[in-house]
Formats: sequence, C-alpha cells, structure tokens
Amino acid sequence: MTPIPLGMVGGGAGAFIGGIHRIAARMDGQFALVAGALSSDPARARASAEELGIARSYVSYEDMAVAEAARPDGIRAVSIVTPNHLHAGPAIAFLNAGIHVICDKPLAATQEQAQAIAQAAEASGARFFLTHNYCALPLVREARALVAEGAIGRLRLVQVEYLQGWLADPADGKQAEWRTDPARAGAGAIGDIGTHAWQLAQFVTGETPEALSAELSSIVPGRPIDDDARIALRYASGARGGIWASQVAVGCENRLTLRLFGSDGALEWAQETPERLIHTPKNQPPRILTRAQDRSQSFRTPPGHPEGYLEGFANLYSDIAAVIRGDDRHAERIPGLQDGLSGMAFLRAAQVSSRHDGQWTKVTP
Amino acid sequence: MTPIPLGMVGGGAGAFIGGIHRIAARMDGQFALVAGALSSDPARARASAEELGIARSYVSYEDMAVAEAARPDGIRAVSIVTPNHLHAGPAIAFLNAGIHVICDKPLAATQEQAQAIAQAAEASGARFFLTHNYCALPLVREARALVAEGAIGRLRLVQVEYLQGWLADPADGKQAEWRTDPARAGAGAIGDIGTHAWQLAQFVTGETPEALSAELSSIVPGRPIDDDARIALRYASGARGGIWASQVAVGCENRLTLRLFGSDGALEWAQETPERLIHTPKNQPPRILTRAQDRSQSFRTPPGHPEGYLEGFANLYSDIAAVIRGDDRHAERIPGLQDGLSGMAFLRAAQVSSRHDGQWTKVTP
Amino acid sequence: MTPIPLGMVGGGAGAFIGGIHRIAARMDGQFALVAGALSSDPARARASAEELGIARSYVSYEDMAVAEAARPDGIRAVSIVTPNHLHAGPAIAFLNAGIHVICDKPLAATQEQAQAIAQAAEASGARFFLTHNYCALPLVREARALVAEGAIGRLRLVQVEYLQGWLADPADGKQAEWRTDPARAGAGAIGDIGTHAWQLAQFVTGETPEALSAELSSIVPGRPIDDDARIALRYASGARGGIWASQVAVGCENRLTLRLFGSDGALEWAQETPERLIHTPKNQPPRILTRAQDRSQSFRTPPGHPEGYLEGFANLYSDIAAVIRGDDRHAERIPGLQDGLSGMAFLRAAQVSSRHDGQWTKVTP
Amino acid sequence: MTPIPLGMVGGGAGAFIGGIHRIAARMDGQFALVAGALSSDPARARASAEELGIARSYVSYEDMAVAEAARPDGIRAVSIVTPNHLHAGPAIAFLNAGIHVICDKPLAATQEQAQAIAQAAEASGARFFLTHNYCALPLVREARALVAEGAIGRLRLVQVEYLQGWLADPADGKQAEWRTDPARAGAGAIGDIGTHAWQLAQFVTGETPEALSAELSSIVPGRPIDDDARIALRYASGARGGIWASQVAVGCENRLTLRLFGSDGALEWAQETPERLIHTPKNQPPRILTRAQDRSQSFRTPPGHPEGYLEGFANLYSDIAAVIRGDDRHAERIPGLQDGLSGMAFLRAAQVSSRHDGQWTKVTP
Repeated sequence: MTPIPLGMVGGGAGAFIGGIHRIAARMDGQFALVAGALSSDPARARASAEELGIARSYVSYEDMAVAEAARPDGIRAVSIVTPNHLHAGPAIAFLNAGIHVICDKPLAATQEQAQAIAQAAEASGARFFLTHNYCALPLVREARALVAEGAIGRLRLVQVEYLQGWLADPADGKQAEWRTDPARAGAGAIGDIGTHAWQLAQFVTGETPEALSAELSSIVPGRPIDDDARIALRYASGARGGIWASQVAVGCENRLTLRLFGSDGALEWAQETPERLIHTPKNQPPRILTRAQDRSQSFRTPPGHPEGYLEGFANLYSDIAAVIRGDDRHAERIPGLQDGLSGMAFLRAAQVSSRHDGQWTKVTP
Repeated sequence: MTPIPLGMVGGGAGAFIGGIHRIAARMDGQFALVAGALSSDPARARASAEELGIARSYVSYEDMAVAEAARPDGIRAVSIVTPNHLHAGPAIAFLNAGIHVICDKPLAATQEQAQAIAQAAEASGARFFLTHNYCALPLVREARALVAEGAIGRLRLVQVEYLQGWLADPADGKQAEWRTDPARAGAGAIGDIGTHAWQLAQFVTGETPEALSAELSSIVPGRPIDDDARIALRYASGARGGIWASQVAVGCENRLTLRLFGSDGALEWAQETPERLIHTPKNQPPRILTRAQDRSQSFRTPPGHPEGYLEGFANLYSDIAAVIRGDDRHAERIPGLQDGLSGMAFLRAAQVSSRHDGQWTKVTP
Repeated sequence: MTPIPLGMVGGGAGAFIGGIHRIAARMDGQFALVAGALSSDPARARASAEELGIARSYVSYEDMAVAEAARPDGIRAVSIVTPNHLHAGPAIAFLNAGIHVICDKPLAATQEQAQAIAQAAEASGARFFLTHNYCALPLVREARALVAEGAIGRLRLVQVEYLQGWLADPADGKQAEWRTDPARAGAGAIGDIGTHAWQLAQFVTGETPEALSAELSSIVPGRPIDDDARIALRYASGARGGIWASQVAVGCENRLTLRLFGSDGALEWAQETPERLIHTPKNQPPRILTRAQDRSQSFRTPPGHPEGYLEGFANLYSDIAAVIRGDDRHAERIPGLQDGLSGMAFLRAAQVSSRHDGQWTKVTP
Repeated sequence: MTPIPLGMVGGGAGAFIGGIHRIAARMDGQFALVAGALSSDPARARASAEELGIARSYVSYEDMAVAEAARPDGIRAVSIVTPNHLHAGPAIAFLNAGIHVICDKPLAATQEQAQAIAQAAEASGARFFLTHNYCALPLVREARALVAEGAIGRLRLVQVEYLQGWLADPADGKQAEWRTDPARAGAGAIGDIGTHAWQLAQFVTGETPEALSAELSSIVPGRPIDDDARIALRYASGARGGIWASQVAVGCENRLTLRLFGSDGALEWAQETPERLIHTPKNQPPRILTRAQDRSQSFRTPPGHPEGYLEGFANLYSDIAAVIRGDDRHAERIPGLQDGLSGMAFLRAAQVSSRHDGQWTKVTP
C-alpha cells in the first residue's frame, strides 16, 4: 500500500498542533509528508522542512497549491495547522486546486472566513475535514453508537466540560499569545476548547441545541478575550444542557468530560481517562466499558494497553486516508464542514448572548 | 455526663429523615430522645413512639411545647423533621416555649413561613439550628479552613452539583409524593437539594453570590415542580459560579460535588467519597487530603476507617450539644437561621429568574 | 422495644476499640450500656464509667460477672475490648455466668487461651461473638451472596491485603505499645490485621485454605514482632491465594482489599471505599455494585449516603441483638468461635511456616 | 534528519507484537522500515512485506543479515519480534553482521539460548536492546528518579502485579497457542509477563532481589505451563517483596501495577492509568504526579493529553535512535542484555523454587 502524499501549511519550529498532526499522519503509515509551507518566514520555513525531512518546501501556500496540483506526484491532501485567522486562506487555495484539506479547528476566526471556506468546499471536488480529534476516540464512538441505538432512551440532560488551567496567569509563550489575541483567535476559551465541547456533544447525541444563554468572562484581569465560558443549552426535544469551558481552572490539565442522562440510562466519559466509558442503564449498576466493548474497532492494541490523544488524532487520519482511497464507509464519522459551521454558529450565538447579559439566543448555522 | 433530653416532631413510621436525626442524636451519646409528636395521626404517633421507646408521646406539637416547657425534666431541644411546609408551626411553638430547635432544611416552603420563624427566633432565648449536614463533614470543614487561610488565593470559579436519579420516573412512594407537590415542598429539586448546594458553597467559600440566572425545568412530563435546575452565579468579587441540581440524573445516587478554583489553587470534594479532599496548589501536583489532615477533628476513628453521612449529621448534633451545654466555641460552624434565610432568598431569586427566561436576578436575603 | 442491658470489660480512658464498640452498640438503639469493668486501675475504672454515664462500675470482671448474673436487671451481654492476652479471662467468666460475650478479635494471644475460651463457650448456654467487623459491611455480605450463588464460578484466585503505615517508625503511644509486645499481642501485623484478612476471605469465599507458606518480617529494625506478613495459600479445591498484611506500608491508612477471581467472573472490594463492589462477569464489562444491589439490606440510609466503619460494627451489634432477642435468622453471618479458632490456626501455621523458612504448613484448627 | 534504515524479523500477518514495533519505530519519524524476514513461510513473508510497503523481503534471516550488512544503504538495526524460542537465531546472526538488535522480551526460551546471545553481543560492535517497554513510560522514569534521589528513603517493601485474564479459558488463537507451549515459550505467565514485572521493579528501585520463593500454578485444568505465578522476594538490603503474575485473572486486561514503600515514603503506579504516579511522602498527603512533574521529558504532548502503551514503546525506539546516531546520554535507561540475563535468572530461580515446593532459591545471573 503506497502512502498518500501529504502537505502541511503551518507547523514550523515552535508550533504545537503541527507536530501532533505529523505524528497522527505517520502513526498508521498511511501518509507521507512530502511538501510544506511551514512558516511565513522563508528562512524558518526552509529550516523546519529540512529538520523534518520534508522534500519540497514552499514559502507561499498559494504557490504550493498551484505547484503541487500540477505535479503527477503532488500531494493529495494538505494539513492546515495555522492559527485560526489563517485557516481560510490556505483552505480555499487548496480546495480550489482540488487538493483535500485537513484543517485544524475551529473552522475560522470570523463568520466571513467560515462562509468563504464553505463556498470553496462546495465548489471543489476535494473534501474538507476538520480535526475535532476527541470524537475519534474509540469509547466516544461507542458512546455515539449506544445513544443511537437507544441505550439511554430519550436524551434529557447533557453536560460537557472542558477545563484547563494553563491560562490562569496573564499569558506568556507563543501558544498563549495568539490564543488570547481577539484578532487572531476570534474567540478565547470558547473558541479554543468550547467548540470541541460543542462538537463532542453533537457528535455523541446526534442533537443540536436550538438556543443558548452564555456568560463569557475574562477572569484574569486585563485579558482582552474570554477565558471562562458557561453556557446553558436548550434542545428542541426538551432536553437541557450545559457547556463549561475554562482556561483558568487551576490544576486542570485537559479535563474534557461528557455526561449524558436520558430517560433510560446515562453515559459518562472523560478525556483524561479515555479508555473507559461508564454506562448506567436505569435501575442497574454502572458498567465500565473499555475497548473490549468498542464496536468501532478504533485502535491498534488490545484493551488495557492505553491509547490516547495521539491515537485519536491518528484514527481521524486513518479514516481520512480511507476516504481518499475511495472507501467512504466511515466518512460519516469524520468531522467536516458542517461541524465547522455549527461551531461558528455556536461561537456567534454565545458571544451575542453574553453581550446581552445572557439572553437566550437561537443558534442558527 | 447526662444526656440532653430531646424531643422530635415528625419522623413517625415510614418517614426518612426522622430516623437519620435519631441516629445522629444517639451516636455520640449526647442526647436522649424522650418526647415526640411523631405524627398528626394519633394512633400512628402512639405506635411510633412505643416502637422507638419514646417515653412521652403527644398528638399535637403545641401541647408538647407547652407541656415539656413546664416539666422540670422537660426536653431542652426538639428536632423538627416534618415536610417543608410544616416546619414553621412547630419551630415557632418551641422557640416561643424557650426550647432549642433543630430543624431540617430547607427553612420553610414559603417566604412568609421563613419570616415568621425568623421573628420567633429573634424573640426567643432559645437557639435555632438548621441541619445542613454536609457542611459538618470533616473534609468540608478542612476545605473551609483552607479557603479562609488563602490556600487557593482569591476565589475565581465555583461549581457545585447535586445530582440524584431517583425521580427520573413519575414519582411514587411517600418521599417522592410530598417532595414533588408544590404546596408541601415549596420548590422541587432546587429546594430539596439545591439549597444544600447553595449552603455548601457559601459555607466553604465564605462568599455569597449577588445575582443569579436560573433555568428550572420539569424534565419528567407532567411533573408540576422543577426536577432539574441550572443556575449561573455572579459574585461581587468578580468570581463566577454555577449550581446544577437534578433529581432526574439517572444512575446518580447522591452525587453532591464541590469544585473551587482560585488564583492560587483549587479544591475538589465529592460527598460520595467524603473522606478525600483534593487540594491542588497552583503549579504543584494535586494532594489527596484525608482526615489525617482535618484540623477540625470532626471524627471518631482514625483516618482510613470511613465515616460518612450519619457521622456528618452526628457532628452537627455534637456541636449543638456543646452549645446547649454552654460551650460556644464551635457555634459558628453550625448552620442556622442565616443559612435558612439565605437559602430562601436563593430559592426566590431562582424562581423569579426562571420565570423571566433566565434574567439575571439579585439575591436579596 | 426495650434496649438490651450491656456491659463492657476494658475500654477505659485512652482506649481505642472500646469507644468503637460503644458507638456501635448505641447506633441502632438496641443496647444500653449499664455496667463496666473499664480498667484494672480502680480509679480510672470509676472515672471512665462516670464520664460515660455507666451506672454500675466494677474493678474486677470476675465480680462483675457474678454480680450482674445475680441481678434481675443485670446485663445480658458483655463487650470485651481488652488487649488480646486479656480476652480469655473475662470471656470465660461471663460465659460461665451465662452472659453472652461480644469479644474483639483476635480470639486470644495464645492457643491455650483460645482452647479455654472454646471449652467455656461449649459448656455455656450463652453465645460467643467475635467482632470481625468488616464482614458485616453491606457489600461484603453481597459479595458473599454472589460467590455462593455462583456469580464468579469456581474459585481460582484469592488475594487479600491489609496495609497500614502507622507502625512505619519505632512505635510510640499506648496503641502501638501493646500491639508490638509479643507477650500481650501474641502476634504482630499478622494477628492485629492478618486475622481480619483471613476471616474476610473465608467469610466471602466459604472456603478455608488447607496450607500456607509464610514470610513474617520485622521491617523496622529492633522490633520484636512481625510488622509485615506475606502468606501464600493453597486451597483443597486447587485455588491459590495470598494474604499480605503490613503495618509499615507508609501512606496506607487502613487499606484492606479483597480480590477474587473465579472461572466465570471476578469480585473486587476495598474497605476504604466500602460502598462499591466491582463485579466482573467473564467477558462482560465490570459492574459497580452499590448498596442499591445489596440484598442483605445492611444499612440505614439510601445508597449514595456513605455508611462505613462504624455502621459495619453496628450491623454486627444489631444482628447480635436480634439473636439475643431470639431471632436467629441472621445468626450464621455473625462471626463467632469458629472464626476465632480458625484465625488462631492461621496464626499458628504462619508462625511455624515462617520459622521454617516458608515451608508449606497445614492449617489445622 | 535522515531516518535510520530498519529491518524486522517476524511480525508477518496475524502477529501481534510486530505491528506494535512498527508503530513505535514510525511514531517519531526516526526509522524507516526497509527490509524484513517477516515469516518463515516464503509466500506469507512476501505478501506481508508487500502489504506493509517494505522494499526488501527475505525468506531467511541469515540471508538478510548477510545481504543487508553488505549494502551501503543496508539496515543499521533490526527488530526481532518472533516467539521466544526464535530470538537467539536472528539475534546472533545480526549481531555477528554488526547490525544493532532490538529484541522483544523475554531474552530467550532457554538458558542456553540466552548465553549464546550474550556471547554474540559481547563479541559484536553492535548494540543489543531489549524492549521492556513499560520502563520507558514517563512516570516510570520519574519514579526511578524519585527513588534514586531518596524520595522514599530506604526501600522496604516492593509489590509488582501483572494481571491479565485472557487465558482464563483453555487457549485458542495464534497468540495463546505459542505462549502456552513450553517448547516455544519456555515459560508461561512468568515468562510472558512476570519478566516485565521483574524488570520494572529492578528498573525503578535499582535493587535486585537475592532470593525468591515461587509458586507456579496451572490454574486452567490441563494447561502444560504456568498461568499464575506468586513469588516472594528477599533483597540483600532487608527489603521484602512480591511478584504476582497471572493470565487467568478474569476481567483484568493488562493490569501491571507497582507499589514501593520505603522508610520515608511510598510510590504507586498502574500501567492502565500510566500518566499518574502517586507519591506519598511519610506523614504527608499523597501527591498525584503527572507528566507535569516528569523530568525525563519522555513525551510529545502537554500533560492531560494521554499518551500510553505505544508512546512508551516509541520512547524506547527514540532513545535507541539517539544511541545509533551516537548520542549515548540516555543509553543507561534503555533495557538491554543485562535486563535480559537478569530476567532469565529470575525465570530459572522461580522454576527451580516452584519445583521444590517454594524453597527459597538464590537468583544468580
């Protein structure tokens, strides 16, 4: 099986998420990273490509899109791992060039950028994927299957939390810098991690809240962007829910948790112990599901051999590889444009609601 | 040391909380239960008293208050363990008779009843105690001490949850019946367990939210009272918080949890594993505190010998006994009238906010 | 219901286990402590009795046995809470006087004492109970029921651990003193906590090992008695097992755990989280059983309201009260003479094996 | 940075550990798998190589060693992932050819094979690595550092358990088949997983037991090899320990746990939650260490983004790559020949002791 030639935009020295995408692409041997526009700084782009053994280094992603599309051995997909406000440019360029796009989340920094990506995606023959990695973890997929087959009955209560503590002090460091800059990030905690929470709930429950009431706060004095977000949710079905995303929850590392309560049972999952899903059928004891119960078979090792964050990312890349090779069986479980637009609608509604003192606001994609 | 003669109103056959109070009163040998008006049904009152070996059985609590006050060996305190709407009557009668009152929470079913109790308490030489039992658990007391001495710095985020699943279906049973009847309970989940959450946060943090936005829901179709309550909190200090109280969270038994995040650390505690308090100083690993670290010494056994719900209740009764015997050293940690009035203000604000679609509402005691 | 008049031998000021027995006797209102020989020091005996409100204080347990047996309102049962080497004397005196004996474990400090107790018990019309309290916890009783009904199939592996850290340093304090004195304790960790482990395994599995290989160590330099015991077990059925009891396991408070693996499933229980029993049927996910699944109904509160160490003790006292009142339905689940003799046989075999460099040694009661 | 050319012996279709080694080699981009003798069946060898995109497929590992050593672009290292009794042949061939060997554990099926490997390794200029993967996990490395710097004081008690349940029934499947065949495996549970436990304890404590007493059992009727092993350990320092390795512990997936108790503290770690290390300094609360405290920096992602089994393996491969590239800084933390010989000595002593009814037996490498 020949690896699929892959490119990357962003992800030069000092970047975080680019390295993650590279490991994910490499893990199952499905991709070969052969081209990159790793930095807008030509010297750094070249040095990074060399360091990483990437054959073809570009300074401009526009040039890269054109050149790669023209090569017989050109890349068939590109990973976009730039800050949020720089997703739209390359995404559109590669989509226009007919090259599949694997874009980091959230979709964009503004609604305009998001719409432009959507239009390019609709016009293109290439596919657009959005790396909401958590939904590719095996027990999350099993949770979704359980909900779909009625294991918890009718959905009643949803609670998703995504708590981090790394921004508990005024920011320092490259990562903190752009993520707390409204112009580049578009949103704070709610964009960076709140969109993961939103997508996770949607992925597992199959339902989208119709309205929300949000309280976005800047807990650290002087921070120009939200670092704590509490959002109440109403579903058309009558279900109620909540999202709490915070980056000032001291001591929390990456505490993303999902709890669902239905008329006939409950599910509970935590990202930091991802290989365990607690399923409580009504009036029965809780059951600790592991990968032994994962019917999606999203793993490489027997249960009890912990797989985690990187393997979740790699699950996405493997599913994407299958789609690129023409196998669409698992296409529906890969997040994409709709997830991205839904996330943008969530962001917008939350920001509007918060500006209006928590007024209940429709979520309109 | 002679046990303090104690009376009880309510708590006849089939009652729940009365039995709990009796065990708590008995555990440390500080009280002797000698009189009761256990039921408004004379036959049941008599039979219950006999079954329990209670020497003096009354049909009417008014008679009991008068008679006991007149006896040289009369009761010095009375436990009131009736449904919420029947707290005010006996509380006032015994306060007026100069007998100390140990009243189950919440204070009352209506604001009028609460005010009447407050007036009686102020006029009386006797004391009024409210059994918010969770705040008497050793690690909760230690948590409070830690916050007070600055272990988590300035308070930023508060999250209290109280999740139960026992009302996930349309109610049946004596307990469910009155607790879901607006006339007798005054409020649903928010009164029955939400007030515990409110008091717990207040007890540990020493701060009271100034405003809230509430979403009270009746998740089970046809239920005339809230069974799920989500409340966002704003503190004058700038801190933000949330309370989630639910009685339809299938699979949850009595999941009361408290999480606090401050500028310098975090605390985390869960009622179902009450002998563990997680303290995370900023930039340090979490520490699992046990009773080995409890400086309040609120226990009977060495750490590792689990004490729990009943011992928490008994801690209150022991502290109350000390006060009755004239030792006020621990009086400040016993919940009382102010906690009760604060709880009523919380209920009122939450109900108002919810009726106004979650409008932010001041909490005014 | 009139409380049963109870006496106590030992348990004066500064004692540990006496206070526990008193709370257990009091908790469910079944006993009234009315007589005591609380200390061999007359002044301390009197002061302790006064402090505790015990009506009749004796200096000598022999006098007490005779006097109480002669009174029409005399005690019907006595709790013996002296150090191990002082169990036999009072036990025999009260058994001879026809008064039921509730004796702390282990049965005695020597085999001779144990045999003497056994003879007295057989000759007496009164009953002999041994307070192996852990086996009275609700989930332990449920575990036993599950094993008995075949939930784990044929027993294959047993592992019981009882780890404490309080003797990690050379001993100080009254408790440590007699427990590390061979003359008074008879055995070290293996007697103090190893016998609990032995009894627990036996109670739950219904099987008794036929041979053992022991390594008893004195880890703290200069300690004249074992403080760490590792014992391998062979069952006649072919099952294999192990007991590890240590009092130098720094950081462990009272970590008694039981694990059973059978041909069709597994059970796992830990004393420090006593209200949870993990049952894993073969090829199925683990189930977290709580008191919601306890069919022995050994509790006072709904599941989720933690009961623990004291309530376990109280469960024994309540079962004993029932037997004294003539209700033998639960008699078989109360530990007694056979458990005591079995524990002594275990001690003896372990000490012999250890002296012979771990040679496999028959356990002969 | 050019990837190091790597070969593989074993690991054809249906094999387990070969796939793990391939992922580990790929994850950090340090190796390129270019040659293989994947199966002794020529057709399967070829098909597997094709499927995996391995350029040069050999039928015989002897031919492969010679041919690759002769090529200018030949492999510099080879991964040996055959069953235990087939380690020695290829290991010796490649060592003789001057090619570094990365060998799966245990070292061999017999003492003779082990000695032959040792001689070849000593004679060769190439290095020999043994993939005891668990010791490469970040918190295990941190545990070792803590012990080395005295965080738990003088070592007193060691307990390592490795419990699996997958052989609870008479074996079926390719994996079970060779692992329960004495001729091919050399030992049962004690070889397959007991050696991991032995090495882990040794790695973290820096001490090697001087004698052991073993009870090897075949719990499943008719199994020709041990499936449960209980071993008591004596250290020259006076410390005591135990290893329990079982493959019939129903419901256990891969439960490898390590507990150490010293004169000044304790450490506790479990493979199934590998990103947490509990450190309890004497008389202080337990601290939950995460990768935030790992000073070995053995990871790719921030703490809270679970890394696990595959990443541990990849840590070994990355350290090996560094050594191959001439950087020996981390060489001492890569398990190798000494670990292998020690493991064989452990196996031998355990088998001898068990045959002599648990007689204490010296462990002589």
